[in-house]
Amino acid sequence: MRVAVLHAPRDIRFEERDAPRIIKPTDAIIRISAACVCGSDLWPYRGIQPITEPTPMGHEYCGIVDEVGSSVSSIKPGQFVIGSFFTSDNTCPTCRIGYQSSCQNRELVGGAQAPFLRVPLADGTLVATPGLPSEELIPNLLTLSDVMGTGWFAADAANVKPGNTVVVVGDGAVGLLGVLSARQMGAERIIAMSRHETRQKLAREFGATDIVTERGEEGVDRIKELTNGIGADSVLECVGTQESMMQAIRSTRPGGYVGYVGVPHGVELNGEELFFAHVHLHGGPAPVRRYLPGLIELVWNGKISPGKVFDLILPLDQVAEGYRAMDERRAIKALLRP
Amino acid sequence: MRVAVLHAPRDIRFEERDAPRIIKPTDAIIRISAACVCGSDLWPYRGIQPITEPTPMGHEYCGIVDEVGSSVSSIKPGQFVIGSFFTSDNTCPTCRIGYQSSCQNRELVGGAQAPFLRVPLADGTLVATPGLPSEELIPNLLTLSDVMGTGWFAADAANVKPGNTVVVVGDGAVGLLGVLSARQMGAERIIAMSRHETRQKLAREFGATDIVTERGEEGVDRIKELTNGIGADSVLECVGTQESMMQAIRSTRPGGYVGYVGVPHGVELNGEELFFAHVHLHGGPAPVRRYLPGLIELVWNGKISPGKVFDLILPLDQVAEGYRAMDERRAIKALLRP
Repeated sequence: MRVAVLHAPRDIRFEERDAPRIIKPTDAIIRISAACVCGSDLWPYRGIQPITEPTPMGHEYCGIVDEVGSSVSSIKPGQFVIGSFFTSDNTCPTCRIGYQSSCQNRELVGGAQAPFLRVPLADGTLVATPGLPSEELIPNLLTLSDVMGTGWFAADAANVKPGNTVVVVGDGAVGLLGVLSARQMGAERIIAMSRHETRQKLAREFGATDIVTERGEEGVDRIKELTNGIGADSVLECVGTQESMMQAIRSTRPGGYVGYVGVPHGVELNGEELFFAHVHLHGGPAPVRRYLPGLIELVWNGKISPGKVFDLILPLDQVAEGYRAMDERRAIKALLRP
Repeated sequence: MRVAVLHAPRDIRFEERDAPRIIKPTDAIIRISAACVCGSDLWPYRGIQPITEPTPMGHEYCGIVDEVGSSVSSIKPGQFVIGSFFTSDNTCPTCRIGYQSSCQNRELVGGAQAPFLRVPLADGTLVATPGLPSEELIPNLLTLSDVMGTGWFAADAANVKPGNTVVVVGDGAVGLLGVLSARQMGAERIIAMSRHETRQKLAREFGATDIVTERGEEGVDRIKELTNGIGADSVLECVGTQESMMQAIRSTRPGGYVGYVGVPHGVELNGEELFFAHVHLHGGPAPVRRYLPGLIELVWNGKISPGKVFDLILPLDQVAEGYRAMDERRAIKALLRP
């Protein structure tokens, strides 16, 4: 089979690899219905994160179970399933608390931009949909594997509650789905920080009530103006840079909440500033597995359409163009069909 | 009147100053019944925090109202009152949310190690006790001005709940009262990190169930051994150094809570480590005003005796010895009687 492999910065190749097979009795093999390119794939693509060897790419996936190991009992061949980018046994003390992305036995999924994928710890990782989905539902279900679950976690970590004022820093797919999540959770006012017209439009469609185009200190000043001078109740940080993190913290009112899900690159937080900011800070890799059943239900019942973030749909053999379009911000998010 | 003034590192003098008087109609003058030396007073005393001019010291206080400004209505001369180290109007948006120590009109109290003190924003800052307290109650009430309120906030920020496993980093008076607070909040297991015998003893008296003497990585390993390998639900950071902060974060389980109240000195948090630690982080200057009514009730009814942290009681003119004893860790906390 042919899969997407990153060889060096901006060098994505679609090349032949052996099809995966069951290695452990807890594995499953799934036939990928759709995969996509993640904002976090751009870190190594841009050379910001080192690439030590040719690396099969992709960790967002959904598809049909092709084969399961001998000990797998909760899913069976023929079912449509979705799983997280971190596998989880869903039984260890950390999983039981709902932090499956810190599972004591977790593995990072790789190589999902391919026709087939081996998923370890299948019982604790994969969740089946109520039946086989229609074609139109597949993009929505695919987002639950990472980007939608991550936006949801950002809003949850930022303690979004009915009536809250929420700020979303970052207008990538995660930030946009953070807007959608905050709306679902009942936020009254949702301020999206974005300077890209197509993204502003989607943010409004997902529930943003205000758009702030300023960044950095100017952006913070603008947020303060909109929030009685004190800052927002909840701020979602969906980028992962020093600037975005400080913009998020400084946009939050004393006693407010920052939910941060952008993988930090070069971020250092000054203890004294954080202390006097008086904010709550929570984030990390989203525990997607915790949210999967509830989010599948919302998608299945047509309550949310997070798949709208895919504004570029490509056959898998054009994966390199998917990376290029996202790198150049021509596309919000690229969906790949094997 | 004579008051404690810090002139330079380790140079505390007891010298003549004008008695305070009402400056604004919102002020009150109180006759100090007892004051004390705070762990945070040791930062400038040790020269870690610069001293730009001779500075009247002390921000923990309780006493009898001597005089009030023309607009003060909630307290009157003759009442026994306690107030926070940060004054607050208790009406601004931040106060109304319960973060009075970030009040938009706050002032830092100074010069409480004296016979009289001017307290600005008296209506929003001072809380009267139900009547005049007995001599024995005064040390307990004094702690509510800062150290007990700060220990309580650490436990609250660390989300201590009935049945929790709690770790307390720091065996100063704040850490010890963090133990007492966690016990009041129903924690099942309270692990105090301390290597000083007298402090361990008081920690046990306040409710600690375990003592860990190791520090740094060894301390973290020991905590992990005691908590199923994952870390504690709630960790109280009551020191403010890089080492203590990292010890606290690394002792917390994924999804757990760090409440930090030690004023950070030279602390820098690495974004990536914090992200993958998956903890909740909250802290800052304790909103003592929010807790005062409840804590006064607990003290008044004999439910808690936080005044046990005072193991050195001195007349105010021996204030310099109070600083020395705390600096050398001969005393946990020094109470000063004018």
